[in-house]
Amino acid sequence: MAEHTMIMEATLRKLLDEKKYATLREILVTMNPSDIAVIFDELEIDRLPLLYRLLPKELAADVFVEMDPDAQELLIRGFSDAELKEVLDEMFIDDAVDVIEEMPATVVRRILEQAAPEMRKSINDILRYPENSAGSIMTTEYVALKPEMTVAEAITRIRRTGIDKETIYTCYVIKDRLLIGVVTVKDLLLCDNDDTKIEQVMITHVISVNTHDDQEEVAQMFSKYNFMALPVVDAENRLVGIITFDDAMDVMQDEATEDIEKMAAIIPSEKPYLSMTPFEIWKNRIPWLMLLMVSATFTGLIISHFEIALQRLVVLTAFIPMLMDTAGNSGSQASVTVIRGLSLNELEFKDILSIIWKEARVAVLCGLSLAAACFLKIFLVDYLILGSFVGVSSPFLVIGVICITLSITVLFAKLVGCTLPLFAQKLGFDPAVMASPFITTIVDALSLLVYFSVASIFLHL
Amino acid sequence: MAEHTMIMEATLRKLLDEKKYATLREILVTMNPSDIAVIFDELEIDRLPLLYRLLPKELAADVFVEMDPDAQELLIRGFSDAELKEVLDEMFIDDAVDVIEEMPATVVRRILEQAAPEMRKSINDILRYPENSAGSIMTTEYVALKPEMTVAEAITRIRRTGIDKETIYTCYVIKDRLLIGVVTVKDLLLCDNDDTKIEQVMITHVISVNTHDDQEEVAQMFSKYNFMALPVVDAENRLVGIITFDDAMDVMQDEATEDIEKMAAIIPSEKPYLSMTPFEIWKNRIPWLMLLMVSATFTGLIISHFEIALQRLVVLTAFIPMLMDTAGNSGSQASVTVIRGLSLNELEFKDILSIIWKEARVAVLCGLSLAAACFLKIFLVDYLILGSFVGVSSPFLVIGVICITLSITVLFAKLVGCTLPLFAQKLGFDPAVMASPFITTIVDALSLLVYFSVASIFLHL
Repeated sequence: MAEHTMIMEATLRKLLDEKKYATLREILVTMNPSDIAVIFDELEIDRLPLLYRLLPKELAADVFVEMDPDAQELLIRGFSDAELKEVLDEMFIDDAVDVIEEMPATVVRRILEQAAPEMRKSINDILRYPENSAGSIMTTEYVALKPEMTVAEAITRIRRTGIDKETIYTCYVIKDRLLIGVVTVKDLLLCDNDDTKIEQVMITHVISVNTHDDQEEVAQMFSKYNFMALPVVDAENRLVGIITFDDAMDVMQDEATEDIEKMAAIIPSEKPYLSMTPFEIWKNRIPWLMLLMVSATFTGLIISHFEIALQRLVVLTAFIPMLMDTAGNSGSQASVTVIRGLSLNELEFKDILSIIWKEARVAVLCGLSLAAACFLKIFLVDYLILGSFVGVSSPFLVIGVICITLSITVLFAKLVGCTLPLFAQKLGFDPAVMASPFITTIVDALSLLVYFSVASIFLHL
Repeated sequence: MAEHTMIMEATLRKLLDEKKYATLREILVTMNPSDIAVIFDELEIDRLPLLYRLLPKELAADVFVEMDPDAQELLIRGFSDAELKEVLDEMFIDDAVDVIEEMPATVVRRILEQAAPEMRKSINDILRYPENSAGSIMTTEYVALKPEMTVAEAITRIRRTGIDKETIYTCYVIKDRLLIGVVTVKDLLLCDNDDTKIEQVMITHVISVNTHDDQEEVAQMFSKYNFMALPVVDAENRLVGIITFDDAMDVMQDEATEDIEKMAAIIPSEKPYLSMTPFEIWKNRIPWLMLLMVSATFTGLIISHFEIALQRLVVLTAFIPMLMDTAGNSGSQASVTVIRGLSLNELEFKDILSIIWKEARVAVLCGLSLAAACFLKIFLVDYLILGSFVGVSSPFLVIGVICITLSITVLFAKLVGCTLPLFAQKLGFDPAVMASPFITTIVDALSLLVYFSVASIFLHL
């Protein structure tokens, strides 16, 4: 919570304690709904309904949609049917759907009972679309115009019906229920002649999304085209709804969070961290931990296999963590770069050869500079200062083995790191789960194999 | 590139080969500027200027701002002074600034020479703001209204001046150069009485940002308030520019990419991956690799220190990678969750106790279930099938040591993982660099210390 919000919260609490409701109301009406919601979310259960009822009708609905699901549920349970109906009447369909998706079944039933018949139908339609589809995040409240209207008639229509629309700035031109054009209020206002027909000012090459398109694609289209709203059409190109930029922004952030969670071996969740129980968090984290733990069996096997060699030259063991970590870090640098490029549509499978060629050169640069630094560090710290190589018959050969292994594993790690996400996407898997932890497990095994092979060749173990 | 863009590109190439310029132009004018830019970016150097000149003036400028810097530079170098001036006249100030920031000094000088004096001044003003500040991403083309205007007068003013404004939908009310209110076109259009004064319909509690605010904060405000535009004011509350939602979306994605890169131990870069040289990529990746490699000295030291113990019970070595990896993964799950929460303002330092308490419980759940699974896996795979414990005097005690170590290190890892980013932010460092690789290094050392301590206690090594 920002500092000014905390000061505001203290002020409101004080006024509430002193029962100065008129002053409270005067302050609340000047505030932005999102700021009020942040404060209301922190309020004690028994004070929330009282304070909420001080808000004028329209502001109350705006605050309601911005609040946490827990607080929303609490308020709904306290609402009379009339109060609930009032809030619903002020809400946009897509906001109502967002609220419903977080509520238990009994509350959902009450909401649908109190919603106006038309709203209930729209809500039910939207709820039927698959999760994360364009249909599931759209709203059905848009301004529809006819191609034969004049600019003046269109403006009149917007002024008459605009109050209930999610956006009035992009209007959709419909003929025989089909979406045939788009016109903005800017086009209408800047048009010199009020008698111009809409079909003459509208853009006819409409960029739209399909109800079943993934919301991630939709967000990418917003960021590519800088639109304020995108029309959603069904398979017959009939306009069924619109998605506005603010919803696209939410999707963008959710998708980035999801990718970050997947890269950290967490199963993504839509619930905010602080409102999840430890058990729920455990459920999202344990599957990958288990899988990665079991897959570390391979590294164990490799070490067991070379047990006798290690016993003969025990100093080699001390460098296993450094080699594995450096390889893991090198690999995840490459994989994360490729994964992010894929999700922003900056990279695609056909770039695979240029990516491999680029990573190979980066790997040679990294491998050589790391090997040089490693040689220096081992010579200065381990050999001279710590004397770790006392009793080793050919210490520089051993240091050489470590540095050569480092260079080779960095190369392997970068190549595995950059190609795995590309193949994952090609095969229809999510590239993000190919990130650090998964790559680390593979690269760990690889680096040990390289280590013991190089050691066998040069040190005849 | 999407499939339909590839088909379109093939069509355009064919028409270009056949010199059917009139048809080419007819197709191009129906396309969205962003789609044209994608195709132009892929075009050969010698064909680009020809195709570009087919575009009508306004569309040409829109396409230009969407193109890659390399292609932009190529075009500018081919432009006559008059052509450059024409493109600049059609561009918004913030787009012009974006182009300039990517160009070499000689090209920048030419651009500034050809820009209209007023535009040149605005560009120079914006270029003076620090990188990543609100001032550096704003534009100076907004609609300004006076409080004493009527709604009808305001609409007339918008119709007269709107063509050159980045957005007309949010208008700013200015008195004595100070920003005193905000009014939207929706408010104006839905107002019943055309003679209402602007000061009566405007919102006076304006939410604005300061020129020196960080762009990340600005993006967070867009996502919180769902605004279409935010006013940027100087220290005296004078309006100096606006930031529109599309720029905020770009910032949002850039900031997410930056966080992801930092979490993967990469120094963030604003250049797209495919246009970076291997040497540039190396420069962004090698510092952390070096640092993490050198810091792995500690893990090496710990292993060296327990060398004799390891020689006595060599089977312990085989489980080092599994223990380190599991601890590292557990730690980065916690750290990444906290880092993302911090950058979305969902978590802050004052939540530290509830975060620690939550992570502790999650860690106990994870630790116990991992230990149980680990026991089963070692018993079945390593003990029964592989016979790794042949010759070990008390195999179940050793397995017990491994499982106890696992539980304890998961607890440590989660606690380190969740607290380090919080302290980093508190101390003014970037929490994102505290992610996986850094945590892994710390947790590696911790897990080895725990391993050898537990082993010493139970196995008397």
